Amino acid sequence: MQTDNLSKQVAFIKEIDKLKYIQRRTKLFNSERHENDAEHSWHLAMMTIVLAEHSDKPIDVLKVIKMVLIHDIVEIDAGDIFLYDTQNNHSNTEQELIAAKRIFGLLPKEQADEFIAIWLEFEEGLTNEAKFAKSMDRFEPLLQNTSNNGGTWKEYNVPFQKVYDKKKAIKEGSTAIWNYAENLINESVDKGILKK
Amino acid sequence: MQTDNLSKQVAFIKEIDKLKYIQRRTKLFNSERHENDAEHSWHLAMMTIVLAEHSDKPIDVLKVIKMVLIHDIVEIDAGDIFLYDTQNNHSNTEQELIAAKRIFGLLPKEQADEFIAIWLEFEEGLTNEAKFAKSMDRFEPLLQNTSNNGGTWKEYNVPFQKVYDKKKAIKEGSTAIWNYAENLINESVDKGILKK
Repeated sequence: MQTDNLSKQVAFIKEIDKLKYIQRRTKLFNSERHENDAEHSWHLAMMTIVLAEHSDKPIDVLKVIKMVLIHDIVEIDAGDIFLYDTQNNHSNTEQELIAAKRIFGLLPKEQADEFIAIWLEFEEGLTNEAKFAKSMDRFEPLLQNTSNNGGTWKEYNVPFQKVYDKKKAIKEGSTAIWNYAENLINESVDKGILKK
Repeated sequence: MQTDNLSKQVAFIKEIDKLKYIQRRTKLFNSERHENDAEHSWHLAMMTIVLAEHSDKPIDVLKVIKMVLIHDIVEIDAGDIFLYDTQNNHSNTEQELIAAKRIFGLLPKEQADEFIAIWLEFEEGLTNEAKFAKSMDRFEPLLQNTSNNGGTWKEYNVPFQKVYDKKKAIKEGSTAIWNYAENLINESVDKGILKK
């Protein structure tokens, strides 16, 4: 049984290597090179460890780390949807659910069920853990864009209000990080890298 | 104080973006593209979550995840040393310790101390957590090389015995994973992608 589990787990470990090829719109800090989903997920996990103390509510840090490590794995099948995409809905699509079932389904049953449940919890965004995980997911590209002279905001002409509305989700996880983020957004307007 | 912490933490979060530029010798699964340290660290964290049940000894999974997420951060300053390098010692060098102090030192004092301690614990490899983390670090490139027709073993003419001796560290963390790994190594000899 344990050996059988191991074969399934190795098949999953090989499959998720594909996350390293999924390119995001955002670019690395002070760079022209696009970030991929695996790097992004690593960075969010690091941010979770470093910033957990700023969560407004008590959180299970291990669970948040699991969420951010796996949150984009469905994009192996479903592709990355840009946060400011006006055609496609960013939230939990049918296609993503099918992807979750296929990819996490490579794991032994119990583990597959756990991973699908954690991914859905993240997508729904209702628990303390999901709220903090989503704060991390919104905060990283904000740091990237402000270090990249506007980054994707400038590239895709995203206006202040749209950025502000999307980033406000940070407040659901942490008031302290939101205050910091709000300052960065306002400074970006002053610097002319975000248009009001 | 909390705001002061946050500024330091953001400085650290920006600095470690550089890990995405540190190239490893090994390549992605079924690929010619080199892996970078951030992708590698994400993959080890995923492997830890998925494979923790195979640890021979009880482990604090969160601690192992922290270890694998940060274990290569010193390479931002010290560079990657190939496991089979005959000139440079792979283990805990003076240069790496200086790097750890500089990079983790960007964090608030208490956090910096925690990260340096976790990194040293990994390097020393004596605790259950460090042993399991090292198993993951040895197992991933083994999976890569066997899926890449020999990968770095072939490229750098690494003989069977050297691979076997290095990979045996997997056994310190998990007998089950070592049995699986040993099979893969033996099969590689049969397939002619590893020379005895």
